[in-house]
Formats: sequence, C-alpha cells, structure tokens
Amino acid sequence: MKITSTKITDKFWQNYRQLVKEELIPYQWSVINDEISVNIQRENANSLDAVEKSHAIQNLKIAAGLATGEFYGFWFQDSDVYKWLETVAYALRYAPDTDLQQKADDLIQLIAQAQQPDGYLDTYIQLTTPQNKFKHVSFSHELYCMGHYIEAGVAYYQTTGNQTALDIAVKMATCLDNHFGPEVGKLHGYPGHPEIELALAKLADVTGDTRFTNLAKYMIDMRGTTPNFFAEQTKTRQAENITDMFDNMDPDPQAKYFQNQAPVREMKTAEGHAVRMTYLLTGMAHIARQTHDQSLIEACQRLWNNITDRRMYITGGIGSTVSGEAFTYDYDLPNDTMYAETCASCAMTFFAKQMQELTPDRKYADLMERELFNGTISGMSLDGKHFFYVNPLSVDPVASANDPTKSHVKVQRADWFGCACCPPNLARLVASVDQYIYTVKDDTIYVDQFIGNHTTFDNGLTIDQSGNYPWQGNITLKVTATQPSQSTLAIRIPTWSQPNYQLAINGVAQSIELNNGYAKISQVWSGTTELTLTLDMSARKTQADPKVTADIGKLAVERGPLVYCLEQADNGSQLPQLALPLTASFIEKTDENSLAIPFVRLQAEGTRIKEDSDALYSTATVRSVEATELNFIPYFAWANRTAGEMEVWVAKQG
Amino acid sequence: MKITSTKITDKFWQNYRQLVKEELIPYQWSVINDEISVNIQRENANSLDAVEKSHAIQNLKIAAGLATGEFYGFWFQDSDVYKWLETVAYALRYAPDTDLQQKADDLIQLIAQAQQPDGYLDTYIQLTTPQNKFKHVSFSHELYCMGHYIEAGVAYYQTTGNQTALDIAVKMATCLDNHFGPEVGKLHGYPGHPEIELALAKLADVTGDTRFTNLAKYMIDMRGTTPNFFAEQTKTRQAENITDMFDNMDPDPQAKYFQNQAPVREMKTAEGHAVRMTYLLTGMAHIARQTHDQSLIEACQRLWNNITDRRMYITGGIGSTVSGEAFTYDYDLPNDTMYAETCASCAMTFFAKQMQELTPDRKYADLMERELFNGTISGMSLDGKHFFYVNPLSVDPVASANDPTKSHVKVQRADWFGCACCPPNLARLVASVDQYIYTVKDDTIYVDQFIGNHTTFDNGLTIDQSGNYPWQGNITLKVTATQPSQSTLAIRIPTWSQPNYQLAINGVAQSIELNNGYAKISQVWSGTTELTLTLDMSARKTQADPKVTADIGKLAVERGPLVYCLEQADNGSQLPQLALPLTASFIEKTDENSLAIPFVRLQAEGTRIKEDSDALYSTATVRSVEATELNFIPYFAWANRTAGEMEVWVAKQG
Ligand SMILES: [Zn+2]
Ligand SMILES: [Zn+2]
Repeated sequence: MKITSTKITDKFWQNYRQLVKEELIPYQWSVINDEISVNIQRENANSLDAVEKSHAIQNLKIAAGLATGEFYGFWFQDSDVYKWLETVAYALRYAPDTDLQQKADDLIQLIAQAQQPDGYLDTYIQLTTPQNKFKHVSFSHELYCMGHYIEAGVAYYQTTGNQTALDIAVKMATCLDNHFGPEVGKLHGYPGHPEIELALAKLADVTGDTRFTNLAKYMIDMRGTTPNFFAEQTKTRQAENITDMFDNMDPDPQAKYFQNQAPVREMKTAEGHAVRMTYLLTGMAHIARQTHDQSLIEACQRLWNNITDRRMYITGGIGSTVSGEAFTYDYDLPNDTMYAETCASCAMTFFAKQMQELTPDRKYADLMERELFNGTISGMSLDGKHFFYVNPLSVDPVASANDPTKSHVKVQRADWFGCACCPPNLARLVASVDQYIYTVKDDTIYVDQFIGNHTTFDNGLTIDQSGNYPWQGNITLKVTATQPSQSTLAIRIPTWSQPNYQLAINGVAQSIELNNGYAKISQVWSGTTELTLTLDMSARKTQADPKVTADIGKLAVERGPLVYCLEQADNGSQLPQLALPLTASFIEKTDENSLAIPFVRLQAEGTRIKEDSDALYSTATVRSVEATELNFIPYFAWANRTAGEMEVWVAKQG
Repeated sequence: MKITSTKITDKFWQNYRQLVKEELIPYQWSVINDEISVNIQRENANSLDAVEKSHAIQNLKIAAGLATGEFYGFWFQDSDVYKWLETVAYALRYAPDTDLQQKADDLIQLIAQAQQPDGYLDTYIQLTTPQNKFKHVSFSHELYCMGHYIEAGVAYYQTTGNQTALDIAVKMATCLDNHFGPEVGKLHGYPGHPEIELALAKLADVTGDTRFTNLAKYMIDMRGTTPNFFAEQTKTRQAENITDMFDNMDPDPQAKYFQNQAPVREMKTAEGHAVRMTYLLTGMAHIARQTHDQSLIEACQRLWNNITDRRMYITGGIGSTVSGEAFTYDYDLPNDTMYAETCASCAMTFFAKQMQELTPDRKYADLMERELFNGTISGMSLDGKHFFYVNPLSVDPVASANDPTKSHVKVQRADWFGCACCPPNLARLVASVDQYIYTVKDDTIYVDQFIGNHTTFDNGLTIDQSGNYPWQGNITLKVTATQPSQSTLAIRIPTWSQPNYQLAINGVAQSIELNNGYAKISQVWSGTTELTLTLDMSARKTQADPKVTADIGKLAVERGPLVYCLEQADNGSQLPQLALPLTASFIEKTDENSLAIPFVRLQAEGTRIKEDSDALYSTATVRSVEATELNFIPYFAWANRTAGEMEVWVAKQG
C-alpha cells in the first residue's frame, strides 16, 4: 500500500506553506542571486565576519564557465541553492507555477554545466583549490553540498520528471562511489558533516540502485573506526604538502564534534554538533531500513532514547551549548544560553520520520508533532520574512545585548544569515509537511499528524482529514473506499491526550485498546466511514525531571501540541518574577488581533514578586507578592511584536 | 596619629600568613625560577596555549645581560616576579628570615641590572621588540609591570630600608613621567591595563614627590577623552609601519574592556574587565585623596555603589562573564558561568580600603570583611598549594567537563596557571592583611576588622585585639595608654550584627548611637581600658534582590562574616534538588576533623526532591520531597576534599 497523492487543506499549515511559496522562495531566490541587499546578521560576538552577499548562484555560474570572478561566501554556500531547489520541488506540488518551474529548470541546467564530467560538484573547491578534491573531508563540506543537491534533484525529479535533475544526482553519487569505498585506492572514509548518507538513501529509494545504499552504509560503518580516517587524511596532506583554510578550523580528528569518537554502534549518547548528529541519525535509520541492519536499528533507538529522554528541550530544541552548537550532557538544558538551532529541530523531525518508517510508534509521531508545532516553526516570523537560528526558551534583551556569552541568543528574527542554513531548511520542511501526516507500513495507514488533508492511496482508499488543529481538538477522518478493501487505520492518540479522548466511528463511540499509542481499526472499508476523534485540549502544566537543574521549581504550559510562553508584550518586564500556582486554571481566549494569525491565548491568575527592598542582599523574608494575570501565547509565535523578554518555564508559585 | 606597628596574633589569619610564608613564597620562587615542574592549567577551552614554565626570572637575567636566550611566557610575565617580591616585603615584617631577605636583595640587584639607564624595564619589550617601547600601551602591559614593581619596591624599601629597591621605582616612575604627560612630545595617554595609577600614588606617599601624583592624575583624567589615545597610537604605528603581536588581540580602542569608553567622571556603571576596572578605581580613590579632587571622589562613589548595589556576588566576587573577564549589566549574577576572579576580589579589597581612607564608613569595612573572609581566600586551598582563578557559586563537575562554556569553572584548584596573576595577588593581600584592621583618620582610630592583633600608635596608645573570629563573636580590645591621650576609637558594628550586639567598656554595657556604622568612643585614654564587643553569630538566611534572576526562590546561608555553601561531600549529589525552609533553624557544630582547620559547620533540616518519574517532561504535580539534613560549610573552604558539586544558593522550600 502506498500514498498516491496528498493535498493539504489545513488552515494552519496552508498559511505557512503559502508563506514559503509566496515569500520565502522568491526572497531566497533574490538573496542567492544577489538581487537584493539584505541585512545579514552575525551569529554571535565571536563568529566569523558577517558576509555582505550570498553569491551562491554566481559561484555556480563561474564554475560553469558562464561568468568570471572569484568564489565568495562560506565553503558550503552551494547548499543554499540546493535547499532552495528542494523547497521549490515540494512547493510546486501544492502550488504549480510555470514561471517558478522554468527558473528551477534553468537552474538545473546551470548546475549540470557546473558539474564536472566525473560528477564532482563543489564550487568552493573547484574555484579555489581544485587540487584539494576530497583531500580534507572532515571540514570541506563537499559531500554535504552534494548530498543536499541529491536531495533536491530527487525531489525535483519526483515532482516534475525532470530527468537532468536526477541524472546530476546519480552522477554525483557515482563520483562519490568512485572515490569512497573499501576497494584499494579509494578513500576509506566519510565526511565531517553527515548529510550524504541520508541523501544516498533517498537516491537509492528512487533509483532502486543498491550501490548508493551500500556506499552510505560503508560511510556509516567506517565512522569512528581505527585508523582514524580524518587523521590519515591529515598525514596524507602533510606528505603531499597540501594546506588549506580548514587547517586552522579542524578540531581533533576524533572529536565528538563530528561524531568521530567511536563507531556509531558503540555510541551511547548523542554528542557533538547537533545538526551533524541528527543528519547522521536520519541517514542511519534510513539505511538500517533499506538493509535490515538490526545493530544499526538498535544504535538508532539507543541514541533516539538518549536525545528524547535526556537532551531535548520541551520545544523539541536540541543542542544545549553554543560552543560547537552541540549536545553537552544528560539533563543539561539551560534555557537562556543554549543553541537549539532551527536546523537541528528540522533534522530531528527527519530522524523521527525515519524511525517511524522503521517501526511505527506513537513516540516518533508525538515528537514530529512537537517539532512541527514548536521548535521548527519558531524559526520563522509570522510574516515569513525573518528567521531565527537559535530558538531560546528564556530571553532577556538586556542579557543578549550586554553579555557576550549570550550574544547568539537573538531577541528578534533576522532578515538573513551569512551562514544561511536554517531558513531554507525550515522552508523545505514546511513545503513537504504533507509527508509527515501518514506512515504506510504493509496494510496499515498510520495517522501520525492532525493536519487537514485529502489523501489517496493506491488501494483506492481516500482520507479526508479535517479540523481546526492545533486550536481545536475535534478531528474528522472521512475514509472513502472506491471498492471494498481490507486495511488497518491506526490513529495516533497523542500522549498528552491519552488520559482523555473520544473516538467514534460513524457516530458510535469506540473503546479501543491502544497499540504503541495507536487506536487501530482493522476492517474492510467500503463506502464512506466517518471517524471522529476528540482530543483533550485543556491547557496543561508540565514539569521537567528534577535532574534538569534549569527547570527546578518551574512549570511549562502546554495546550494540545503547543508549548506556550510568557512574553513581555503581554506581561510586562521581569518575567522571572512571575509565578504560576500549580492549582491555577486557565481561561482560553481566541485572539484574532494580536498577531498575524488567530490563536488561542491562555490566561491564568498568577503572582508577581513585590520588590520591597533596594538591597542587593538582605535578610530572607516571605516574599510579598501581588496577584497578576498571566498571559500565555504559543511559543512558535513569540518575537512577532516589540522585542522583549520571553519565558517558557515560569516559576511555580508556593 | 599613625600606626607605628601591627602584629597579628589571630589564629585564623596566622594560619594563612604562615601558609604564605612557608608554602607560597618558596613555591612561587621555585616556579618563577623554573626549578620545579608544575602542572599548569589552561584557563578554559578557548584560552591561549598552556605554558610549560614561568621563565620570569630568566627573562630578567637575559635583559640584565647575565644570561642568553629568548623571552618566554606572557608579555606581562615580569609582574609575577614583582608580586612575589611585594609578598616577601610584607612577610618579612611578620616572619623575619635572613635567607629570604638575601634572595630578595639579590633579586633587586638583578632587577636594577635589567633596568635600562632611563628607568625603563619590561623584559618582553626589551627582548623581543625594543623599538616598540610605549608604542602600543593599550595592550602591552609595560606600565602594568612597572606599576607592580613600584608597589613591590615601595613595600620592600619600607620593610628593609633597601634604598636600591626604592631607587628602581623612582627611576621607573621618572621614566614614565618623561614619556607621558601634557607637554608637547610626550604621550597624552594612559595604559590599557590600569595599575600604574595606584602604584604611583603609593610612591608619592612614600617619597612625598608630587610628580608621581600628578602623573597618575593625568593618566586618570585623560582616560576615555577625545581624541582616543589608543586609536591615535594605532595611527602612529601604522604611519611608522610598526606591527606587533598585540595587533590581533587589541579590542576596539574605545572598548569598555579597558575602561576607555568615556572619561572616568562620566562613567555611571562599572564596565569591562573587572580587574582593570577595580585597579583603576583603587588608583582613582588614592589620587582623589592625595589631590582632594571632589569630582573624582564622586566618580569613585558612583562606581562603588554600582558595583556593590548591583554587580557583586554575595561572596564579594565580581565579573559576571568569562568573556572579557568582565562586568555585564545590573543584576546579572549567574552562579555557574561567571568569572569572579580571585584578583578581582583582591582588587575590590584594595579599592574598599582606599574608599575607607577617603571617608570612613562601615560599608567599606563591611565589604573588606566580605572579601577577606570569602571571595579572596576561596582562591587558595587550605594547604596553600592550589589555587582558583575563577570562584564560582555553583559547580557541577559534569558541567565543567562537558560544557565548553563552563570549562573555565574549575572544580579543583590548580597547581599553578600560565597566566599566574591570582596566587601572588592573594599572597600579597594575606601578607599585608594587617593593613586592613585599622584606619586612622585625624584623631580617630577606626577598628575595621576583627582580626586579633597587637598594634601601637604614635601617640602612645596600644591596642590588643583578641577573639576567635570568624568562629566566635566575642572580641576584646584592650586599649593601653602609656600617657593620657585624647582620641576616638570607632568600632565597626557589622551590618549583619547591628540588630543585635553588645558593647561594654570595662564590663559596663554601653548604648552608643552608631555613626556611619561605627560605635565611637571619644575620651582621654589612660591606663588600660577593656572593650568587649559581642556580635550576633547566629546563622542567617539571606535573599537577593529579585531582579537577580539567578537567585529567585533561593536562599544563601551566612554566619558572621562567612558565606556558607553546600558541598557534595556532605550532602550527596544533585544539590539543586535540596531545599531549605525559610523557617529552618541551624545547629552549629565545631568540626575539627573534616578539613585542615577547625571550623563551624551548620546543619539544618531541609528536603530533597524524590525523583518519582523517569520522564523528562511530565504532568506537573506537587513534588514529593523527603526530609534530609543539610550540611553547610564555609564557602572559602570548599573544594578541599574530593571534587564534587557545590552550591551557595539553595532552593527555598515551599
Ligand atoms: Zn541552521
Ligand atoms: Zn588573577
């Protein structure tokens, strides 16, 4: 059984997808073509110099011999172009646009011209140090960029049938296969920034060519083994007197930073650069599925558990420190200094989807939901024009301005970034969010997400899902069978609603024992069956494991799939002085005016500390507090008004 | 009226001073002479490379023409030698030692030989870039090093009468006076690391030569004015094609980092590198006293208030961020990421003493006490052999090991540092702590500190102060007059004891209205008068202003002058899960065995969170807690056992 088409009809996601199509794609196109002057933000006080333009398309034109000039930008600048193309591929499925498609077709021609006869394509290397091809892959990003192209080429081919798009990808993968592998004379290695693994897995899916699966598996298997590949490459470069700009950047070749501290099957904890780790895991899970590799599956599960049980923010954010944009240690989840990169939440979504494809389980779909409704879309403003790299859970503009160690925690979204990985990553996720709604495994359709849609399956089933999620908890699934057909519909009951939900078939309430968190209905479907699911949308107070020092004595507020937060615009300043009683009840108000989209606001009676002394330190007393109304908005929507403080975790009163 | 001699008889401080004399001085001597191999710690993950040896004496020998070789070490390495010499100068006053004095005499000969005929001495510049003298004073530390020599030379001359020691200092200061000043052809500037200002003030005191006062005042007055001196020096270097190693280190010439953002009289807040700021303030206060400069006094008071009202830890620590080892913004006092350098607490003590000399007030003496009993001596282990650079208030060894942004927060004191500013700074403070006990102003003797001592005054008065401070609150002051003499004895009533203390004269209880926090007794003293002061040594619970986000919902425990803390060795791990009820009472226990010195331990009934769920996030509940005994030790004594967690601020129960 397979999905044959999905059309999203959901208001919440249609809005985001429209923003991607109408705002992000044209905007990013003008950025990568240097057609507009953008205000490019530095990541933090210590980051590389701000850049003035993208130059990404121009780099390709120079490489293609269609322009002259020098390479400009980050050494992974190509990937911006490819992520744009991938987003376009998905957007054309829901918003056909001949002009846009022509632009993409032309771009593919340009990419084909820039690609070398052997399939190699990396404009940084080609234009600056062509003698250094694959000589320094711990830091060069050649495989990262080609991986992003392969993803884009596959997606664009699938949407439009453009054969060149696929051919470029196959040539690239063939080039890599010619250079990497166990054979004598090939590089027995893998890249410093994982990405190619998941891309090769996708290419194998679409081409059926197991060479690509095998190559990705080889790279996964070799990672972290002895002799250390990165160290060997350094020896080779020294022997050949090759130096490059990466020599000063490259960490210890065995660094956790790029997951090279141990073979992946021996890793017990998620370590290093969070995006690298989760891209690697996405590829591992996909390859494990293609190869039925049980030890690789177990490695994925072990690292999944470590992240979701011990190293993840309630928003789905990962990467507890700016230093190396990395994981740190179990339960280290500081709210005001972390990284929680938008890309890392996107990558965690990709990883969750691959885990779900392996062995469907509510926990994977729950996490996709957490990411989709919180940690990913918080990366973009409601107008689709401004972006976060870092997604903090606690913000004080005075701190961001005056403490250099918090300079990466921005209080307003930027127009663009020199290192512009995040906006296009979020764009491609939003544009392909239809792929996260259902998982089909054998004869079972798993309803993973409550995003309104019309989907057809190859056995003649059609599902029309509707509702007003995430604001309301009533979801209707109209299942229509053109011919009677035996199959299973498995409906996720989100963990947060399991204590209280209703499921009815054609109006008849059902009581179904959950299986891995899913209510499974196995029957011969015929005609139209209407399933109605009612989830518990009561606002919830959530606590963290007390080993999370940062959250001791604090509460988070959630409603449905959404994490909420306090903003200064609604609650005044000094948010850490506010407290929420454990017993507080919430008033829900639909707010049509405060933000660009209508949303459900939550109000509760709380307290504010009265500052009754000017002394920095004084004899401890029972703090006087005054009653105050606390006003929560969805986390994803924060920072869409005047810059101010924000807190996800609020003090527990009493 | 003047002090003619002070001999410390106090057990607590005799121990520290003995450690300085018997451990630190010989140890540091062997370090600066490269006679022992020490384990030198890197400051943090991003710091300059670790160094292998000191080479400081060798640099002087090479500069003196007595050895050959190259300069090695930091460009301010000379200052290590001078701080050693200054410590020796003070130590010889309480522990005469002919061998040590001979070593110091020989060292002074060496320094005299290394000094150039015009008085200049900086081995880094002399041995590496002699053409660059005073060409890059924003970062060069030439004036910093000479300032440290001047302090040492003055102290050694005062102790031993060694005229060469003073002559070198006068020659240096004369050299600086020849190069800096308002006259045409001189540099209209000031150094990037203040220190020379306070040194010149000391030299002016001992020589009576107002040239030195005027030069220091000139540097203070010029700082932060337009045109920017550091920027002008950069232009000059560029015009003269001079480059040096500082070109890549030097921040913005107007940076707050070295207090060059505005003229000092316009500064409203303490900014930048905390040690630079407080050395500058120490010099400002001293020069303001020498010149009766009212606007400078007001600047000192304004910045004093800003630091002590808004930017200081309860331990006296200052410098809220590792980035620039700097102040950040009002009420930003994170407990686990700050700097709170030992040197900064020493410098704050120097500043407090100068403010006290200007206008005696309990607040200055209170702060000296806070620094002396907490934030300074925490920098040294109880065996006198290990040192902290950073003095945190919250420590988790797992965090220090796994979060690079906390890598500067050490859990155990190091043998030594490549940049070894702190240990000798603390050594010279401890060796001169007798200078902090009394302040004499006109006919008033202010009893600032309760450190047992025998002190004589030039009017024939003698004070014998005794007690068992900081452990017990009974202090006896035996005042003996060899001839009847009218004067005032002003006894500090610490702010923390003001609600409850007793003062008796010859056994007769007194009730004296306090004046600026002092109980003043003006009389003709004759024979022996016994004053007995009884301070309230009950353990106290202290809260921070709720604008200090890091301390909301938390309590600190203090007793007498001491801040207390929880250590893992006494309380198990997961210290943030412990809580202290506001109503808890303390049991005091004298502990003779746990540490190298006897101390008063504080115990209270508290609670520990029961971890009853393994979920990272779960529905909020009333936390189950179990009763547990909380066991507090003095903060200064932390990290003298197995490495573990430590917390000064403990959660308030309920
Ligand atoms: Zn990113
Ligand atoms: Zn220091």
